[in-house]
Amino acid sequence: MDIKSVQLELKKQKITARLFTLGNMFINEDILDSENRILELTNFSGSYGILLVTQTKAYLFIDGRYEIQATREVNLKKVELVKLSTIGFFDWLKTNFSKTPITMSYNPWVISISYLKKLSSTLPKATFVPIEKENLLLSPNNVKVFTHAKKFTKYISKDKISDFTRFIKKQGLDAYLVTSASNSSWLLNLRSNALPYSPIFRAYVLVEKNGSYKVFANHSDYPNAIPFNQLKEHLEKYEKIASDNKTTPSIISSYNPNLIHKPDEITNLKSIKNSTELKGIKNAHIRDGVAVCKFLYWLSKNYKDKTEIDIAEKLLSYRKKELNFHSESFATIAGFGENSAVIHYHATPKSNTTIKKNSVLLLDSGAQYLDGTTDVTRTIAIGTPTPDMIEKNTLVLKSHIALASAIFPKDTTGNEIDLIARYPLLKQHLNYEHGTGHGVGHFSNVHEGPFSISLKAKHSAPLKPGMVTSIEPGYYKEKAFGIRIENLYYIKPTKNPAFLTFEVLTLIPLDKSLINKYLLTQDEINFINNYHHQVFLSLKKYLTKQELEWLKVCCAPL
Amino acid sequence: MDIKSVQLELKKQKITARLFTLGNMFINEDILDSENRILELTNFSGSYGILLVTQTKAYLFIDGRYEIQATREVNLKKVELVKLSTIGFFDWLKTNFSKTPITMSYNPWVISISYLKKLSSTLPKATFVPIEKENLLLSPNNVKVFTHAKKFTKYISKDKISDFTRFIKKQGLDAYLVTSASNSSWLLNLRSNALPYSPIFRAYVLVEKNGSYKVFANHSDYPNAIPFNQLKEHLEKYEKIASDNKTTPSIISSYNPNLIHKPDEITNLKSIKNSTELKGIKNAHIRDGVAVCKFLYWLSKNYKDKTEIDIAEKLLSYRKKELNFHSESFATIAGFGENSAVIHYHATPKSNTTIKKNSVLLLDSGAQYLDGTTDVTRTIAIGTPTPDMIEKNTLVLKSHIALASAIFPKDTTGNEIDLIARYPLLKQHLNYEHGTGHGVGHFSNVHEGPFSISLKAKHSAPLKPGMVTSIEPGYYKEKAFGIRIENLYYIKPTKNPAFLTFEVLTLIPLDKSLINKYLLTQDEINFINNYHHQVFLSLKKYLTKQELEWLKVCCAPL
Repeated sequence: MDIKSVQLELKKQKITARLFTLGNMFINEDILDSENRILELTNFSGSYGILLVTQTKAYLFIDGRYEIQATREVNLKKVELVKLSTIGFFDWLKTNFSKTPITMSYNPWVISISYLKKLSSTLPKATFVPIEKENLLLSPNNVKVFTHAKKFTKYISKDKISDFTRFIKKQGLDAYLVTSASNSSWLLNLRSNALPYSPIFRAYVLVEKNGSYKVFANHSDYPNAIPFNQLKEHLEKYEKIASDNKTTPSIISSYNPNLIHKPDEITNLKSIKNSTELKGIKNAHIRDGVAVCKFLYWLSKNYKDKTEIDIAEKLLSYRKKELNFHSESFATIAGFGENSAVIHYHATPKSNTTIKKNSVLLLDSGAQYLDGTTDVTRTIAIGTPTPDMIEKNTLVLKSHIALASAIFPKDTTGNEIDLIARYPLLKQHLNYEHGTGHGVGHFSNVHEGPFSISLKAKHSAPLKPGMVTSIEPGYYKEKAFGIRIENLYYIKPTKNPAFLTFEVLTLIPLDKSLINKYLLTQDEINFINNYHHQVFLSLKKYLTKQELEWLKVCCAPL
Repeated sequence: MDIKSVQLELKKQKITARLFTLGNMFINEDILDSENRILELTNFSGSYGILLVTQTKAYLFIDGRYEIQATREVNLKKVELVKLSTIGFFDWLKTNFSKTPITMSYNPWVISISYLKKLSSTLPKATFVPIEKENLLLSPNNVKVFTHAKKFTKYISKDKISDFTRFIKKQGLDAYLVTSASNSSWLLNLRSNALPYSPIFRAYVLVEKNGSYKVFANHSDYPNAIPFNQLKEHLEKYEKIASDNKTTPSIISSYNPNLIHKPDEITNLKSIKNSTELKGIKNAHIRDGVAVCKFLYWLSKNYKDKTEIDIAEKLLSYRKKELNFHSESFATIAGFGENSAVIHYHATPKSNTTIKKNSVLLLDSGAQYLDGTTDVTRTIAIGTPTPDMIEKNTLVLKSHIALASAIFPKDTTGNEIDLIARYPLLKQHLNYEHGTGHGVGHFSNVHEGPFSISLKAKHSAPLKPGMVTSIEPGYYKEKAFGIRIENLYYIKPTKNPAFLTFEVLTLIPLDKSLINKYLLTQDEINFINNYHHQVFLSLKKYLTKQELEWLKVCCAPL
């Protein structure tokens, strides 16, 4: 399919516009490239975007992280880019389409109930036409489904379901349909290799208040599952049934008129990691630290003539050697020089750049281990960095430390804590066009709710003890260089349980050649020295003699 | 009326509980002591509280600002205090009353439509009984209503109403009922002396989409007004009519079933001060600075044997001499020694304390001038302060400076900026049980929406250029001393209009004897020195020779 054929179809059917969002029937979860209609139509490969095709034009809406990348990937003669940093999508719709009664087609398996509601209230005069003839269910692709063992999860599926029925009963429901694949995976203690980076089992679970449940999935993936095309008949009978309208495809609301919205409690339950999960996550971070340090030592000796793609492959090869390794947790971002300024850069054969002196390599990567998920960004000087790079890296480091060492009252939400990190950068009239942090799953999605440390997340959930989050401020100078410093942390109470704070998980040294200590306060210097001391103690017994010598230098006090 | 008679009435009528909130038919606005049923029943004089009387008990719900004060004022044998810092009122209701079908009586002129809704959804099994036999309309009390002149407001009432009809038409309404007295006052450019501190005209305005309007008020206050008891017949005829359900008494929803909720746009319009208003506010702050400095000079020579009440009276006498003075903007808080730890302290003949060495005086006061409203808190050492007082004052000052010198993206809300101020205190595991800042009216309420710099204001509006806010972090050590440092600021864009910052309005020196400069960064020292330089330049020509000498010392660089 291409844009022209979409437009021909629109003309034939007398429809004003066709809406494409990124997704499949598991809304807000990762998708395969083969399911990505926006990639197919525009060549844009970012993880977020909205495409609106009218009979004569095509608009791609992209956020701040993808402004540079979209310009590189998309044919701008055919597709007009709209920056969401200048106007929100719904405001744009209101401005351009609210005057006249338009018709807009959409895929009812990919547009959620809540999204359709928002579209309808934004354009009250519009008619929305679900296009149902397409193949909307997931295609089978030799998926292996496996159990996530009790030694990693602490609780077996039966106990989780019994816990969840308390929520169902409290809400006065007969049944609840779990439509988030990562929530289904958590509830069933099942995982799969359906996706390259998120080990989730793509299934719905229908749980009754008495604890009995049915799993809906591709039959080929999981023999006990009921195929998705039987969902309607299984839903019809309930008088009091709910699902989360943010993750439920709008078509499902037609299956049962009694279906109401209740936020999926599993999103909260799974975000708070239990003692076994936290222990696993800590262990996974030690192994991940070992793998990355071995790689960084190798890089320090071997960067010459290596490309960004070589770098990503070499890093993966070190991680693969570690216990419990399953996969990367997302496509490694290895951006050198100018490419480091592209927030979500992925090297393609065309853009692939050879590492050489004197600039920075921005390396954002992570892994799925059976006992935990990692996500870390380091910005590494190759050769001699410029004074500007050192100054900006030090500033981003101040931002990172400001939030990482914060103490905050319980009930504080993600958006309420975001400015703590931006503060040092904003004081220099600088900012970064992405969030400050995201929740991280336990051998699950590397981006997980219910909170987000972002000024855009106006309804973020509160941060609670046991949650895992990234802290990742950055600075990006287009066509020059980019900086990001990211660690994962878990949230824990202070001595006074009314206050919370962060405890670090990531154990990988910062590049001191990019730090100007004269721009730091003594508290900030202490933070870095203490962190490096902890890194050294945690990793030292897993390294070769040469690697250890290298780490000792990396972790020596400033 | 006393609690016993309320309980007798409950038993007679077989009602489980009676709810009292602070207010009259102008919900969320100031009230007279004579209208304050909670004061009458419990002797609690705070500006916020909820009283719930059951047949056998009475519960007073108070927030962090009033925990100490309530203990002092209320007879704890008769009234049980519930701290809202430990449990929210609605959570308390759910815990205590959700199991059984109770009946609860309330005054439908004092409980808003939105509050009643929240009560009903919190206790779905409860029956709510409006008590209508009471005298619910305001009693006449020789009110003088007067015009707020164009030279202060820039826009005449006719233009404001015409502006407002655009909002009415945009919402597809025939008419809008303005029920907030301060919004009515702004729209009509009318003020009154009905209240001691807020110069607002207590009226409703019914505006039609064609621009015609009707004013509802006590006839004795304003001869052109329609009495409130004719409101029903004037509202009945509209098919499309709205009001703000947060400020509209619940009884009014029974006057017209078509009445729907739309947030009152005047709350936003009046919060953004125009050029004339801002100029007036700046001038008012110069005069207020002169008055307070003259007082502080007097205090430095004459504190001996003076009481807290003497202090408040003397300060008022200096303000009264200034041009355009109308009244204080709230009851002065002059708390000495232990009393300074009571966040909203008001000296009574019983508590009135004589100033003596060596402690601190917390002085929170402000004035209504025709051209602007002021609100300032200074903590002043009397004699030699303790090292702890100096350390904590310096810490609160760091908190104040952190927020006052922040740069933040537009669309940032009040709750998203609050932690910037708390950060330095929280790092020492300290906090203050009140908000960090509130909007301030223009010759209107000293507390004004739509935003609030507070972690409790989860739905705060964004901060916008032209808004005026206080910044007022504090520290309170019960039975020892309290610190608060408050200035007013207006919000303005930086060179980059995507970023906003604060510009100071208050011009009164900080007490340097309470500052330990070795705990400050160079940036913080520069902030203080620049501020004192600005104070000195702004005030110097309005002081006597002796006062000027004193100010010079106060404003000399640290």
